[in-house]
Amino acid sequence: MEAKTPKDSRTIITDIVLPSETNPIGNMFGGELLARMDRAASIAARRHSRRIVVTASVNHVAFNKMIPLGSVVTVEAKISRSFNSSMEVYMDVWIEDRESGLRSKANEAIYTFVAVDEMGSPVKVPELIPETELEKERFIAALRRKQLSLVLAGKMKPADATELKALFES
Amino acid sequence: MEAKTPKDSRTIITDIVLPSETNPIGNMFGGELLARMDRAASIAARRHSRRIVVTASVNHVAFNKMIPLGSVVTVEAKISRSFNSSMEVYMDVWIEDRESGLRSKANEAIYTFVAVDEMGSPVKVPELIPETELEKERFIAALRRKQLSLVLAGKMKPADATELKALFES
Amino acid sequence: MEAKTPKDSRTIITDIVLPSETNPIGNMFGGELLARMDRAASIAARRHSRRIVVTASVNHVAFNKMIPLGSVVTVEAKISRSFNSSMEVYMDVWIEDRESGLRSKANEAIYTFVAVDEMGSPVKVPELIPETELEKERFIAALRRKQLSLVLAGKMKPADATELKALFES
Amino acid sequence: MEAKTPKDSRTIITDIVLPSETNPIGNMFGGELLARMDRAASIAARRHSRRIVVTASVNHVAFNKMIPLGSVVTVEAKISRSFNSSMEVYMDVWIEDRESGLRSKANEAIYTFVAVDEMGSPVKVPELIPETELEKERFIAALRRKQLSLVLAGKMKPADATELKALFES
Amino acid sequence: MEAKTPKDSRTIITDIVLPSETNPIGNMFGGELLARMDRAASIAARRHSRRIVVTASVNHVAFNKMIPLGSVVTVEAKISRSFNSSMEVYMDVWIEDRESGLRSKANEAIYTFVAVDEMGSPVKVPELIPETELEKERFIAALRRKQLSLVLAGKMKPADATELKALFES
Amino acid sequence: MEAKTPKDSRTIITDIVLPSETNPIGNMFGGELLARMDRAASIAARRHSRRIVVTASVNHVAFNKMIPLGSVVTVEAKISRSFNSSMEVYMDVWIEDRESGLRSKANEAIYTFVAVDEMGSPVKVPELIPETELEKERFIAALRRKQLSLVLAGKMKPADATELKALFES
Repeated sequence: MEAKTPKDSRTIITDIVLPSETNPIGNMFGGELLARMDRAASIAARRHSRRIVVTASVNHVAFNKMIPLGSVVTVEAKISRSFNSSMEVYMDVWIEDRESGLRSKANEAIYTFVAVDEMGSPVKVPELIPETELEKERFIAALRRKQLSLVLAGKMKPADATELKALFES
Repeated sequence: MEAKTPKDSRTIITDIVLPSETNPIGNMFGGELLARMDRAASIAARRHSRRIVVTASVNHVAFNKMIPLGSVVTVEAKISRSFNSSMEVYMDVWIEDRESGLRSKANEAIYTFVAVDEMGSPVKVPELIPETELEKERFIAALRRKQLSLVLAGKMKPADATELKALFES
Repeated sequence: MEAKTPKDSRTIITDIVLPSETNPIGNMFGGELLARMDRAASIAARRHSRRIVVTASVNHVAFNKMIPLGSVVTVEAKISRSFNSSMEVYMDVWIEDRESGLRSKANEAIYTFVAVDEMGSPVKVPELIPETELEKERFIAALRRKQLSLVLAGKMKPADATELKALFES
Repeated sequence: MEAKTPKDSRTIITDIVLPSETNPIGNMFGGELLARMDRAASIAARRHSRRIVVTASVNHVAFNKMIPLGSVVTVEAKISRSFNSSMEVYMDVWIEDRESGLRSKANEAIYTFVAVDEMGSPVKVPELIPETELEKERFIAALRRKQLSLVLAGKMKPADATELKALFES
Repeated sequence: MEAKTPKDSRTIITDIVLPSETNPIGNMFGGELLARMDRAASIAARRHSRRIVVTASVNHVAFNKMIPLGSVVTVEAKISRSFNSSMEVYMDVWIEDRESGLRSKANEAIYTFVAVDEMGSPVKVPELIPETELEKERFIAALRRKQLSLVLAGKMKPADATELKALFES
Repeated sequence: MEAKTPKDSRTIITDIVLPSETNPIGNMFGGELLARMDRAASIAARRHSRRIVVTASVNHVAFNKMIPLGSVVTVEAKISRSFNSSMEVYMDVWIEDRESGLRSKANEAIYTFVAVDEMGSPVKVPELIPETELEKERFIAALRRKQLSLVLAGKMKPADATELKALFES
């Protein structure tokens, strides 16, 4: 199974915010953005694994900025690290000013997907080789996040979460 | 401002999974569940604060079980801890067997909301007083999660995250 | 087949009114409320019967109050009476004031469902035993409504609709 | 204000049943049909009154036939009687066999709308003059239904519901 | 296979523009109208052919008029010409003034559908015999449009497009 | 007003086909694809003009390939030519095989948008300078299509449509 780079799974959804996707105060409804990101992330995971993929968890989404009706929103998803059968997908969300054309960062989000066969059993996925500085940084942090998930779920002892532990011992 | 209990914000959405809400392999589309949980959580946050609320982050959602077409899904949302102007909402998701009537746990999810005034500025929210054992447990863990968010966002030094640090020193 | 109480089928959908669910003058679109009630009622009928259920009729829905965009709407459905294979579902709809938290009654609705087997043939459902005063009242009125439906459909002679007739002879 | 005939308000929605509008067993979701009828009926009421109209009640809908995925469904709505500011809308629903082209009756439904001014206050609507035999029959029955609604709502004494009473004294 | 007239396939969708179907400046979203027309046209093609039909192309749609929120929109579709297994569907779109009841033309559109069997192979469809002046005019122009499509797709030499060529030689 | 290249307006929507977007035979519903393309094209037109844009016409869409449920569909939109206040948008649609990752062309489509000011009056848009061979080819053909539209709408005499005429004189 050949290793892949984040670029191989890069997926872009650029779309507008219509009235049917807003909340009562006229900004993009949070649930709608969560759903768009789920669609983008699942395509990225599918491109990395060439398998059926299912959402395993949403690890973190920060809504830093309100996204008003009529905005052009770009979701860019790339695999940030793969484990045995799971893939962490990192997403960056931008909005774009119509008049100036300037893009500004609105959100980041991290989802995890698992590749499965037709019977729903997990299958191995290719390794990920990060290329850019940012990709390498996210690759390293992904292991900490993985350990953190396991610790919080009671599936790993804090003492064994070496990467995570280091963070608190510095 | 009077303190409230988790029961005061308890919000229930029981709904069926229709074909328009499934993914290509016939289970509930992850994005649809994320959206339903955003609706339930925002109502809970509104009931606690009696204010306009906006989604600040999705802290964790684990999809432990596929939810097939036609399932009855219950999302139950309650405030698990309030900070100055933010509220952590803890959700439990069950599905229900039609024939036996038995309910089984499908997911847990944690979202954070911020209460704002008409201008969008954060406003203070009531304190939360947990009552049951489970509520108390989630109340304590909420502080760790809060510190963790701050650490991961680079807004708190790991050394200051006392609650979190303790976890790794035991 | 063991008798059940209304409490056994009690189903709650609490949800917000988003812009995609409003009519051109900014209130909840009637068709959207009818659809939400159909979902709540079908779950209640399924909980009572543990069977596949199909909507047989909408007997009465009164829209007493406009429900503005952004409202929190609670639909509560309970079986009010069961007949051979059909169940009358009674729904109460409330809206909730964000600032005061006060709930006010917006609507009532009555739907009828039939339980069927996999082939679509009607099957027997459990008896219903009403408990509260209101449940008992609705249980008695359900028979009058049943007779009325049959009379209006030309399937019962007015003279045989004893419960209904009594109403006009007092 | 000139009287109108049912033909003046006749409204037709012919549409197909897509997968997003079905229930878990592959037939048209009841709530979707209720919503389509609400749209058709509101247009008919608007054509009769040339006013803003709001749904006042759903008086009766019988689901006599399942409507499978892919069906062509025609909803035909016409005013069946007008009162001061309210209008009863009678709807016939047909489905059409693709191969033979034969239409068969699937449902009937009765909704009531009220005409309002910009402030939401009820305004007078034109009288209705039925023309065909069927229209005349429905016109007469509409008064009985009106009385029945008032009696059931406790707004009219059964003894005063002369049209309705006659039905039980024959 | 018996020839048919345009009247045999006439299909009407009269529907209102709800907030969920508008663009950010409050008019009907173009994509929504394109979708409604696709539904109307597919029903007309199905009525003409009594077969499964699939959209082959959208030949022309002119958006001459903005359609504001709350408008009543009528799409009327009729077959304008049939070829071997394909059918050109001509649509007229009107909007209706609520107060005066006057209808004005908003759009015209031309779609082409192909009739297929269960395996997806094209099947022959009945001939179309136009009746009114307008239908005859559209019938003749349909051949020019057919030739034009073939020329633009490089499937016919301009010199062989006799009908079309005549247009430029006058 | 500075001229722009097609690359400046390039817009990509990569998305999956969910069950709610299919027709009764399990392929992507034509209307849904038309709507997605309208969204992509409007963003491209907006990026070229930095103005409010409205759909003026759909000039041509060929559905060459059925797109099955679960497909990953990529719509790529770029301005192919600008006129005074209107812009032709050319779209290429691909689908992607999950296992091999190979992309195949599914459709092409041409829409026209007009840039308007806040009052809805047309405003001038930047000139377009095509760069690649394909862009230059589409740029030239766009003028023929423009003349064709005018001729078909009776707004230009065939004899004046010089570009178009040349096609039939070769």
